[in-house]
Amino acid sequence: MTRFNALELANPGVRKLKPYQAGKPITELERELGISGIVKLASNENPLGLSDKVKAALRDELDDLARYPDANGYYLKTKLADRLRVQASQITLGNGSNDVLEILARTFVGAEHEVIFSQHAFVVYPLVTQAIGATPVAVPAVDYGHDLDAMAAAITERTRMVFIANPNNPTGTFLTAEDLHAFVAKVPEHVIVVLDEAYNEYVPEKLRADSVGWLAEFPNLVVSRTFSKAYGLAGLRAGYAVSSEEIADLLNRIRQPFNMNSLSLAAATAVLDDQDYLQQSVAVNDAGMDQLIAFCEQQKLNYIPSRGNFLTIEFGPKSGEIYEQLLHKGVIVRPVAGYELPNHLRVSIGLPHENDAFIKAMKELL
Amino acid sequence: MTRFNALELANPGVRKLKPYQAGKPITELERELGISGIVKLASNENPLGLSDKVKAALRDELDDLARYPDANGYYLKTKLADRLRVQASQITLGNGSNDVLEILARTFVGAEHEVIFSQHAFVVYPLVTQAIGATPVAVPAVDYGHDLDAMAAAITERTRMVFIANPNNPTGTFLTAEDLHAFVAKVPEHVIVVLDEAYNEYVPEKLRADSVGWLAEFPNLVVSRTFSKAYGLAGLRAGYAVSSEEIADLLNRIRQPFNMNSLSLAAATAVLDDQDYLQQSVAVNDAGMDQLIAFCEQQKLNYIPSRGNFLTIEFGPKSGEIYEQLLHKGVIVRPVAGYELPNHLRVSIGLPHENDAFIKAMKELL
Repeated sequence: MTRFNALELANPGVRKLKPYQAGKPITELERELGISGIVKLASNENPLGLSDKVKAALRDELDDLARYPDANGYYLKTKLADRLRVQASQITLGNGSNDVLEILARTFVGAEHEVIFSQHAFVVYPLVTQAIGATPVAVPAVDYGHDLDAMAAAITERTRMVFIANPNNPTGTFLTAEDLHAFVAKVPEHVIVVLDEAYNEYVPEKLRADSVGWLAEFPNLVVSRTFSKAYGLAGLRAGYAVSSEEIADLLNRIRQPFNMNSLSLAAATAVLDDQDYLQQSVAVNDAGMDQLIAFCEQQKLNYIPSRGNFLTIEFGPKSGEIYEQLLHKGVIVRPVAGYELPNHLRVSIGLPHENDAFIKAMKELL
Repeated sequence: MTRFNALELANPGVRKLKPYQAGKPITELERELGISGIVKLASNENPLGLSDKVKAALRDELDDLARYPDANGYYLKTKLADRLRVQASQITLGNGSNDVLEILARTFVGAEHEVIFSQHAFVVYPLVTQAIGATPVAVPAVDYGHDLDAMAAAITERTRMVFIANPNNPTGTFLTAEDLHAFVAKVPEHVIVVLDEAYNEYVPEKLRADSVGWLAEFPNLVVSRTFSKAYGLAGLRAGYAVSSEEIADLLNRIRQPFNMNSLSLAAATAVLDDQDYLQQSVAVNDAGMDQLIAFCEQQKLNYIPSRGNFLTIEFGPKSGEIYEQLLHKGVIVRPVAGYELPNHLRVSIGLPHENDAFIKAMKELL
């Protein structure tokens, strides 16, 4: 009798996936390390904390939570559609943009397809590709950013999807609207282009692509956005895709009807009305970016110029060691060796005193 | 030049899926119908509303929501493991049990496989099967319930998964522990048995299967549970699977790391300590069930004996009409024609006055 082997029953793509290694909650980590007041600059979260308007909206929602969420996200979609000047039927809501990206892959990509993304690009692209058993095609980066010409050249008959992160995480690199538009225009229509703009709100308005406006021109384009960054809702999971109505109809077949919970819907709806919070998020980020860049230049450290809410800094072969030493000094940053950047660490931008804590700890180490 | 056709690019399984038709929020429906105070007995929700202990836990959580959720659900898993007498590493958390069921299918089922479930069983089983492009095998029911012998006989070399809902939604039918155990013992090990116990807490303790205890005996068994019903967290999306560590490891590769949001995690963790709420949920349900059954017997209406928090009643060919008439009287119940039960309506058990509202409206109609 052979022993039961679950791995052999799993889909081929799943067999190759590495289980996600989650960190412990900060409170547990503090207990283990015997320290307190850890400064977390590791997950590109909004250091302002939750908007007060969102808190009020959440308190108002507490009584009705034994009821299922609104499966259609009526109020959120209506408001988003108004802001984006699209139809509500063009929007697909996601439990964070991770969910949106996964829904996109599961809708269009089969095991027989190739999926193109850039080296050093967001880890969810290869993960959702592998889960399906499709072939990931990572195109070598140029200056840590997307090489759009090489990506266009990598497209074959088997390509079904291209992911572009703009700005990219974890490098912060940014593509101009002009370059991006020229690229999308070159992509044949059997390929869905997913433009992931998770960090869009940190880009100065005059530099932002009118990507949602391009949907009329490119029926194979999908724009993905999140509320986890500048809107400060990472803990609530809220993201969305904007596309043609035709594509949204397909995505909504795969979407779990209650993928965003009632509080997530309420929070995202409320924060869209809090423009002050958004402006403050951007202002805090701009100031913090200046703070980190000044530190790098003073210490003669190379960094990748970033349009996100983080800065990826080159510390050389000792990066892993520095990460550990920072941790023991109560500062968590993000190693990016898994992104083929073993000599860098990604530092999320925090409040001024949090950035100072990182800088102070680093000065002790250097 | 051919017109872009997104449908042709979609995976074969997706092409056949019907888009989910979500109802409007109650407030919108009331506006449209020009009525107020609608009684909703349509979604098997807990009529008690959210537990006060959960409300307090949620209020405590509001400050930290700009941070990502704990990807490992450390506190919830630790508490669940303790209650269920399993290891935390045997638990997979889901954004509701819908998410758990989808993760299970995506982990083990490929387009080449068959998935077995019963006629009249929960709609998510065929949906997740079709999304993958696998072959759904719906085994005809006996007395509206699972025909376990026929289901066992339907297993082939191509079968990869069997879903069993116990009690089943939307029929409320229930399998004894003895019958269920004998069935699982018969299933060959190349087939994963998913035992969906969403309504488990409404079953009298002495009748419940020791399904989690069976995991030691059957390595191919997975038990799925939810917090949406007796625990009253439908709006928060919380569910989980219990399995061998080996299976949980695979499921957690497919699971989105932040699938449960921070408030969902906090709510599920808190409600596990609110045994009073759980007992009250069951007591309200038992009393309401008696109320609905008395009505049926008085009116000589057939109903399907139910172990859930709902009763599915036979109204004959006019069921659709009665549904509409009830709606205009401000009572929403659930048509189940989509479950091959065109002559029935499913009525969720509400608070006494809500059940009365349904009974009063029905008496006016009959």
